[in-house]
Amino acid sequence: MRELIERLHEGLPTAAVLTDPDVTASYAHDMASFSEAGAPAVVVLPRTVEQVQHVMRTATALRVPVVPQGARTGLSGAANASDGCIVLSLVRMDRILEIDPVDRIAVVEPGVVNAVLSRAVAEQGLYYPPDPSSWEQCTIGGNIGTGAGGLCCVKYGVTAEYVLGLEVVLADGRLLNTGRRTAKGVAGYDLTRLFVGAEGTLGIVVKAVLALRPAPPRQLVLAAEFPSTAAACAAVCEIMARGHAPSLLELMDTTTIRAVNDLAQMGLPETTEALLLAAFDTPDPAADLAAVGELCTAAGATQVVPADDAAESEMLLQARRLALVALERVGTATMIDDVCVPRAQLAPMIEGVAAIARKYELTIGMCAHAGDGNTHPIVCFDGADADESARARESFDEIMALGLSLGGTITGEHGVGLLKKEWLARELGPVGVELQRGVRQVFDPLNLLNPGKLF
Amino acid sequence: MRELIERLHEGLPTAAVLTDPDVTASYAHDMASFSEAGAPAVVVLPRTVEQVQHVMRTATALRVPVVPQGARTGLSGAANASDGCIVLSLVRMDRILEIDPVDRIAVVEPGVVNAVLSRAVAEQGLYYPPDPSSWEQCTIGGNIGTGAGGLCCVKYGVTAEYVLGLEVVLADGRLLNTGRRTAKGVAGYDLTRLFVGAEGTLGIVVKAVLALRPAPPRQLVLAAEFPSTAAACAAVCEIMARGHAPSLLELMDTTTIRAVNDLAQMGLPETTEALLLAAFDTPDPAADLAAVGELCTAAGATQVVPADDAAESEMLLQARRLALVALERVGTATMIDDVCVPRAQLAPMIEGVAAIARKYELTIGMCAHAGDGNTHPIVCFDGADADESARARESFDEIMALGLSLGGTITGEHGVGLLKKEWLARELGPVGVELQRGVRQVFDPLNLLNPGKLF
Repeated sequence: MRELIERLHEGLPTAAVLTDPDVTASYAHDMASFSEAGAPAVVVLPRTVEQVQHVMRTATALRVPVVPQGARTGLSGAANASDGCIVLSLVRMDRILEIDPVDRIAVVEPGVVNAVLSRAVAEQGLYYPPDPSSWEQCTIGGNIGTGAGGLCCVKYGVTAEYVLGLEVVLADGRLLNTGRRTAKGVAGYDLTRLFVGAEGTLGIVVKAVLALRPAPPRQLVLAAEFPSTAAACAAVCEIMARGHAPSLLELMDTTTIRAVNDLAQMGLPETTEALLLAAFDTPDPAADLAAVGELCTAAGATQVVPADDAAESEMLLQARRLALVALERVGTATMIDDVCVPRAQLAPMIEGVAAIARKYELTIGMCAHAGDGNTHPIVCFDGADADESARARESFDEIMALGLSLGGTITGEHGVGLLKKEWLARELGPVGVELQRGVRQVFDPLNLLNPGKLF
Repeated sequence: MRELIERLHEGLPTAAVLTDPDVTASYAHDMASFSEAGAPAVVVLPRTVEQVQHVMRTATALRVPVVPQGARTGLSGAANASDGCIVLSLVRMDRILEIDPVDRIAVVEPGVVNAVLSRAVAEQGLYYPPDPSSWEQCTIGGNIGTGAGGLCCVKYGVTAEYVLGLEVVLADGRLLNTGRRTAKGVAGYDLTRLFVGAEGTLGIVVKAVLALRPAPPRQLVLAAEFPSTAAACAAVCEIMARGHAPSLLELMDTTTIRAVNDLAQMGLPETTEALLLAAFDTPDPAADLAAVGELCTAAGATQVVPADDAAESEMLLQARRLALVALERVGTATMIDDVCVPRAQLAPMIEGVAAIARKYELTIGMCAHAGDGNTHPIVCFDGADADESARARESFDEIMALGLSLGGTITGEHGVGLLKKEWLARELGPVGVELQRGVRQVFDPLNLLNPGKLF
């Protein structure tokens, strides 16, 4: 332990090595529930690639595990410390190195906050789509590690689709460059993509080349009220089957609507079983909203309200953005699940979750990136009540089992971390797990990088 | 050898095992120049996953290398046989298993021809973008193996972006499922993407879940003539920097224009140094073409001709499609390169290639997916002339060196195969090669899958 700290100091400024247990304890975990977290031996906050290399060389020499961290807004425990580990926080490597409108790329350090990058590129008429709810806090490095998504994904895809190339410090401190800064490239295996969603188990991302898009027109939003979640899901399927390209297609159930009203007095219609929000950032969003409104009506919507302008649109989106915070007030604790199913299975998924809520006598609010089939059932419970907590955990698992039985995945955008390790093995099967372990072994033969995460 | 054939027959119908040397010789190579090809021991043509598993189990038991093949339209020798190998042709596994407009996916076997799939999904109002020049012959399995691109990539990206999930027969005959059929998913390392562009070295793809898009409006094309390639490249940069989203942005130099005229009497303007073709499949393509036409004029275009309708557009595209065939008539042999550079480096790249042509006293026609920075310099030479052939090979290598020096990659969409093995090592560097080898070893510990390709 003393040797570890001394050696770290040899390549890091004093202020970049934190050992006060009160301080290091605050780096122990991310925002996941039900995920154990240990006490780090030390927290390091490098500012340069060389400093990260020094940390990894030291870790390798002394065989100390390393847990990489961004803003710790993750929801699966992937950033949780283990006892005696080095927490490697990348938040001080927060420079935007380049924004290039011709090649439509940005080159960034991992600690850049998502919203900071989004605003910086917007100033140049460009757009970095991935927009997880935590976008004002979360870092690009964390987004890459977890494979983060957001509201935009139905049209613009997830973080993985925007990572063109990486600079990575390997477990032994060597530097690896992957990918490219060109629009295309197929030179060898796609190691870049392997790092996205790898939760820091393959190496430490110290630089990323990100693809950007031209900024789209401002989006216009429509709200549609449905008498059942099944009717809302039917509308979603119809919208997608007809070839529409909404920039957002979100669903909230009545539990969520009530929670949002309680929090913010928004006057959302509480007799509605499901509220669907659709948005378009096309050249003529009003026309697209009108067409989608008709499909909603045909699917049984009782009310269809297109926003007239950006301000009205923003108000409707506000309701969706408040959903998680609002549901957190229902119990003393929440678990947010992240099961993604084929769109056609969205209705059985949502109905199945409602049945699970009844079975376990729990409040489970349903928010969904409906256009992606990506559900976020939010289990609300009293964390001080052991029995209710146990039921919450069981319901959470049953939701994943349901998702897999419907041809879905246990995680659309939040990752595996500690929370879903067992479930990852079920989804991948023994052959898949064996190969994934083999790949991990190639990059981290001493098992020092975020050990215990993923599998 | 006799044991190999006997064992293969145990799990394959007679007609699926070809041993006549005259027949098997016709499976020896793809369309790459300067790439050696050996004599296969046997060619197998399975129709089912079980038959592929039988082939791989046999190969593993007898330690016989396996070379997977699609339509052999590849341009890097990745499908070339080695002496005594099993050629595993997937062309008879050619069923489209599913097209789902709600989830916007197709599920296909590897032998489905690209154009067959494209037409089948178009009938349902859907679009499978990747469109390599060989699209009427090439297979989806081959497209996945090589990471194929096409004209569409500037707007719609490459094959990799459309592969959601795979079923793969491993070297030892076991079955692996990767990825998903949902819109999103981050469960574990992205092994799906690892197989794209792997040239069959990691496993045999026997089924693919492909993402589809809604069919866009029909594209409208504009042709612009420039007094220099530099001016045309400046227009390309300006078009992209201004946020336009052309569905095609292609450049042909004067050598290519003349060859096309010689072949097809198209009456293209031969005094023009560079012809730029831009297309839009937006809701109002005429307006987009007008805006782009103005940018071309500002960049120095001497003539800007927007097509009035689909027929005129098709005629303009025909010129581009004929380019390779036309240049093949210039010498007795051609080598087509595939260097992709950042867009801002396109002008120096093209000028550098012209200088290389002068230095080696060769005709090198330039076609480029200009919007991607992906150049296809086509070296034309007399294959019977040893000296000229040697100069052709040298110029080909010098073109790759130039691409790397400009921050590019040695291959944008054609792959590495045999042709660019040495150059892949230069691009990846020793650390990259070491890790890529490690990954290969995990999937193919006995080195039976397309040995000698990539690295």
